[in-house]
Amino acid sequence: MSLPEQPVCLDDVERLAAAVLPAAVRDFIAGGSGNELTLDANRAALDGVHLVPRVLRDVSDCTAETTLLGRPAALPMAVAPMAYHRLVHPDGELATARAARRAGIPVTVGTLSSLPLARIAAEGARTWFQLYWLRDRQKVSDLVKEAEEVGCEAVMLTVDVPWMGNRLRDVRNGFVLPEDVVAANLSGGASATARTARAAGSAVAAHTREALDSALSWRDVEEIRSRTGLPLVLKGILDPRDARRAADCGVDALVVSNHGGRQLDGAVPAIAALPGIRDAVGGHCEVLFDSGVRSGTDVLKALALGASGVLLGRPVLWGLALGGESGATTVLRLLAEELHTALGLAGCGRVTDAQGLRAFGSAAFTALSPQPAVP
Amino acid sequence: MSLPEQPVCLDDVERLAAAVLPAAVRDFIAGGSGNELTLDANRAALDGVHLVPRVLRDVSDCTAETTLLGRPAALPMAVAPMAYHRLVHPDGELATARAARRAGIPVTVGTLSSLPLARIAAEGARTWFQLYWLRDRQKVSDLVKEAEEVGCEAVMLTVDVPWMGNRLRDVRNGFVLPEDVVAANLSGGASATARTARAAGSAVAAHTREALDSALSWRDVEEIRSRTGLPLVLKGILDPRDARRAADCGVDALVVSNHGGRQLDGAVPAIAALPGIRDAVGGHCEVLFDSGVRSGTDVLKALALGASGVLLGRPVLWGLALGGESGATTVLRLLAEELHTALGLAGCGRVTDAQGLRAFGSAAFTALSPQPAVP
Amino acid sequence: MSLPEQPVCLDDVERLAAAVLPAAVRDFIAGGSGNELTLDANRAALDGVHLVPRVLRDVSDCTAETTLLGRPAALPMAVAPMAYHRLVHPDGELATARAARRAGIPVTVGTLSSLPLARIAAEGARTWFQLYWLRDRQKVSDLVKEAEEVGCEAVMLTVDVPWMGNRLRDVRNGFVLPEDVVAANLSGGASATARTARAAGSAVAAHTREALDSALSWRDVEEIRSRTGLPLVLKGILDPRDARRAADCGVDALVVSNHGGRQLDGAVPAIAALPGIRDAVGGHCEVLFDSGVRSGTDVLKALALGASGVLLGRPVLWGLALGGESGATTVLRLLAEELHTALGLAGCGRVTDAQGLRAFGSAAFTALSPQPAVP
Amino acid sequence: MSLPEQPVCLDDVERLAAAVLPAAVRDFIAGGSGNELTLDANRAALDGVHLVPRVLRDVSDCTAETTLLGRPAALPMAVAPMAYHRLVHPDGELATARAARRAGIPVTVGTLSSLPLARIAAEGARTWFQLYWLRDRQKVSDLVKEAEEVGCEAVMLTVDVPWMGNRLRDVRNGFVLPEDVVAANLSGGASATARTARAAGSAVAAHTREALDSALSWRDVEEIRSRTGLPLVLKGILDPRDARRAADCGVDALVVSNHGGRQLDGAVPAIAALPGIRDAVGGHCEVLFDSGVRSGTDVLKALALGASGVLLGRPVLWGLALGGESGATTVLRLLAEELHTALGLAGCGRVTDAQGLRAFGSAAFTALSPQPAVP
Repeated sequence: MSLPEQPVCLDDVERLAAAVLPAAVRDFIAGGSGNELTLDANRAALDGVHLVPRVLRDVSDCTAETTLLGRPAALPMAVAPMAYHRLVHPDGELATARAARRAGIPVTVGTLSSLPLARIAAEGARTWFQLYWLRDRQKVSDLVKEAEEVGCEAVMLTVDVPWMGNRLRDVRNGFVLPEDVVAANLSGGASATARTARAAGSAVAAHTREALDSALSWRDVEEIRSRTGLPLVLKGILDPRDARRAADCGVDALVVSNHGGRQLDGAVPAIAALPGIRDAVGGHCEVLFDSGVRSGTDVLKALALGASGVLLGRPVLWGLALGGESGATTVLRLLAEELHTALGLAGCGRVTDAQGLRAFGSAAFTALSPQPAVP
Repeated sequence: MSLPEQPVCLDDVERLAAAVLPAAVRDFIAGGSGNELTLDANRAALDGVHLVPRVLRDVSDCTAETTLLGRPAALPMAVAPMAYHRLVHPDGELATARAARRAGIPVTVGTLSSLPLARIAAEGARTWFQLYWLRDRQKVSDLVKEAEEVGCEAVMLTVDVPWMGNRLRDVRNGFVLPEDVVAANLSGGASATARTARAAGSAVAAHTREALDSALSWRDVEEIRSRTGLPLVLKGILDPRDARRAADCGVDALVVSNHGGRQLDGAVPAIAALPGIRDAVGGHCEVLFDSGVRSGTDVLKALALGASGVLLGRPVLWGLALGGESGATTVLRLLAEELHTALGLAGCGRVTDAQGLRAFGSAAFTALSPQPAVP
Repeated sequence: MSLPEQPVCLDDVERLAAAVLPAAVRDFIAGGSGNELTLDANRAALDGVHLVPRVLRDVSDCTAETTLLGRPAALPMAVAPMAYHRLVHPDGELATARAARRAGIPVTVGTLSSLPLARIAAEGARTWFQLYWLRDRQKVSDLVKEAEEVGCEAVMLTVDVPWMGNRLRDVRNGFVLPEDVVAANLSGGASATARTARAAGSAVAAHTREALDSALSWRDVEEIRSRTGLPLVLKGILDPRDARRAADCGVDALVVSNHGGRQLDGAVPAIAALPGIRDAVGGHCEVLFDSGVRSGTDVLKALALGASGVLLGRPVLWGLALGGESGATTVLRLLAEELHTALGLAGCGRVTDAQGLRAFGSAAFTALSPQPAVP
Repeated sequence: MSLPEQPVCLDDVERLAAAVLPAAVRDFIAGGSGNELTLDANRAALDGVHLVPRVLRDVSDCTAETTLLGRPAALPMAVAPMAYHRLVHPDGELATARAARRAGIPVTVGTLSSLPLARIAAEGARTWFQLYWLRDRQKVSDLVKEAEEVGCEAVMLTVDVPWMGNRLRDVRNGFVLPEDVVAANLSGGASATARTARAAGSAVAAHTREALDSALSWRDVEEIRSRTGLPLVLKGILDPRDARRAADCGVDALVVSNHGGRQLDGAVPAIAALPGIRDAVGGHCEVLFDSGVRSGTDVLKALALGASGVLLGRPVLWGLALGGESGATTVLRLLAEELHTALGLAGCGRVTDAQGLRAFGSAAFTALSPQPAVP
């Protein structure tokens, strides 16, 4: 399946995808929580970052190749964990994994993937497994074990979902999963909740509340740290104090993220939080970034402000919606081209050179409350 | 009376209420003074606050229960004092008090309530009495005495109304009280003024100017402090110097408020003033907040910036307008749900945990004039 | 002549005036120079100032009475110097002077008044004389002498017009003075230029360039200082170094002003410059303010940031346009009422109390270049 | 050819030109890279600068005459290097050079000029030669030699184009050079690429990528410095560290520029970078400025923030489009008049006086990342 028209940037892809997706699915992907203040602030804050390019540094062999979690990646990017790829294309996560493999980047398979982890991992991409802390603790153990067995290279524990944010688009749409989309890694019962229209509210939110354990705490991080030899990543860190504690717990990487504006409405834009996190962990663990990346320039901004790589979410689903593996590949190709162009124009022959770039930014996000240094 | 449609947030309630209220009443509730700069700035400033959520803190027993003025409340909220609830629903303040009782929060009965204080207090909600400093000083004494006798738990003296702000919507509308709405706690004569159309200006403003004493000063606060054993709350404090003096006078609580943008147009957004007040009183008296709260996230922002609770004004009237007690209950339920969701997503199992949250905010409100530390 | 409709604020007056004035006259009054960046910034900066009101200070005898240049005034306001009042009403400056007298405030008569200084001064208002530095130096001497003879209380030398700003509205309109409007204090020849349509550009600008001497310097200030015993005011100061020098020259008062956005497009908003000027002169000369005042709250903002009074320009002409003396009186009455309301709501019983108010403001005007302290 | 209507400012010229140019050419001139964030930020940042004018400094002999690269110029301006002037007018760079000569300012002839350097230089304007670092190193030598021979006064090496920015307007338009427009200084083969429509992307970008050498580095600057006695200018510096290094290499001048928003989208507005560059080089080399100048006031802003002159780009092409030499002359005349007006209104009798002006500015561009002092 080819794309209906040649997109030249990710905004094009978004528009094209919006035209082919059912409105409720488009909204499920696009929406944020509450009044979508954080959703909008993510973009405004990224657009507000202005980089100071360097010149005269011979970028003739410029490359975006790098390492992520200690292993080579063609780009400082990975596919973010997202639920139910089959909502947008029948090939679902298989297509995503193939596109990631072709692009040379890791794919993160979600606990709520719509195809089984093992099948997705078999596609041969570097695979990370995203873990939700389920009330069914046996299931948690089984999933981590399965991740190890199928060759996942990391476990990424999502720490910002004690329950789901209040996504008003889904509530207004009475959003439910269609019959043929299941949480393939979980038992059928949980999925049933996600498929049942409710008097009020989103079926997916109800499922989440039913399945996830809001008691998740640092003790659990320590336990999971001791239970698996895989690198451990915590996703959803915004406060430098939490970042420092994660580093002290031996966590291998953090994802600075506000869940794409889908959890606490009114949360700080992730990019505004990034420099503080970078300074707090001081190289003691890797810092990844997501929430709002829509171009290669956005990737460069995240690199300049302290990330070693970014996770790509919604744009991958837009690509999938347009053309399965081929559409997702288009998205990753556009990003790769944009990033390469931007690296060279900023005088960066290597991804690591971006860390030396200076940035100017909107003063819209200055500290209102005392910000004691992290001890 | 059931709601015509299921609102999923307070903005929905506002829209629904606007559709059923007479335009002049809708404007009387919605309007601010002058060019409504402060009215708009209240919302912009609250939207501009961005919180930094914490993670991994076990929020499985998250609760919004707290204390207000030393006694338990189900939520860090109370109904703000507002005049004439019967403007929007025949049950008026009785419906409001019932909704507050059901929600487990205090209701503040205004000097200008449209039903008698005693009847409202009899509904069994925690009741606070809002006092305007009347020229008729005997009436002031009588009202405080009545508040004590009917079981009010506090006297909240409004200190920002030497006279009413210039509310142009009311002036343009020639707003007058309808025949069946009276200031039930005052003499009939005063109400007559509020019901008489005037050559120019608002009848309600004329009534206020006639009835209220602009000579109110710190001496009067001390006098009232000595005259009643009830906790004393001052409503309408924005300058840290006034906050400190209130604490020194033995005032039990302050309400940081610009009267919802209805008094001095051009006054600082209340949320921008809040951190300075918190720092000035340093725990020597309780700090409440109002002016612009429209969601549970707004409540969380106020808590993070130093308030122990917020007063809810216009949204309660919108709910009343839609369905009396049931409509007001819907409003308070939405806020309770939103606040619970937000607390957990911010890693706060208790209301007091919110005080440790960091906040980023718009730099739009930085000091222009020297800000000497409060001595 | 009565007003066609009852305006409740100055914006109303502006709209009503716009409906009755010829478009080219309306534009001549409303317009700024260049892209009108400073014209717009004046308003944005004033709207961006947020005051912190005080409470509990007994404002029952609140009054806006004050002194200006050492003599009593009913309000901290004066009518700004403006050219050619007869452009908007046949009674011209006579009507303005009567309205000022009735309001108890000074009127400034311009060098380019459309009626003779002596006639205007005879109306009995406190009168200040605005002086343009004419190439015809004898005329300068004559005008100062006449000002003294007719009882003017001050000479206000305009220092920001070596030539006129590039007012594109006038250029596009090919604006010329109508036959019956003359520069009554100057010779007929000069006026002829102002009445002649030109191939390109504004006739009024051509006249200004012909008549005014761009060589005006501090030496001339010292000369005029030594030539008259009247208080000397410099109008158009924005840099604290110039303010300090003026104080050192024995100037009695400054007007912090960017000429209402009509001279250097891109000049700093006058209100943003005000605190720096106040600090630089430290009470050694009086500081007045103009440029953008449109409400009593704006007056209060100027007082809080360091002015002892403001000059009112365009709004007075709008009032004149609507109803001569009566229209101008309406404007001054609205301002007086708004200021009284605002003073009380800010806890200020006296104009001087406003100087203790704190202000928050937009960070849009922070120093880009080094700002060494004025020595 | 006369202009169809009398423009009174450069915005008028832009509108008039947009009406006569083919859409794809108009877009090729107007467009920026990516989402045009930097294109827009250039204008927003310039509009956000507010100057503090001085007064009483006798500007009767005010003049904008100055020196650029050590030689007299009638204005602190030069025509920026731009490709293919014949895209907009058949006289191309000859008309531009004549207009520059008439205005008394230098013209920069681009490597990608559409007429030969020698013919343009023969028009008698002060001529600078802009050099792209071509893969064909012999061609580089030949061009520098030719520049010397035809009397160019400087070589301006563009350092911010290792490859072209991703200009989406050109990509969407499938922009190709028309048959009669050639890169007259280069071989025919290179031009062919620029004329061939491609499956995806801009033909001009393809040509640039083919012809330019992205290996350009400081070594090459040193080499070119040693190969020619002409003054050497580096165009496209934004980081103070690069500015200092350029000064250390004996470079004669820098152009602080983000290539008019056409290279790295997300680059800092050039005007925001200017003060840091000025401070870094401390007078050790001349600092020129481009990117977004659209009025005489913009020129004054650049002077105040540290530039000794500005380069004019797009506005010259608009003028050319409207009327060849005559149109370009109109543009330069408008700028000269606006600058003269602005200088006097700011109290600057000379261009160098502008350096003492203070400026206020938007806080939108504050440092996000540590900004160590340049050693």
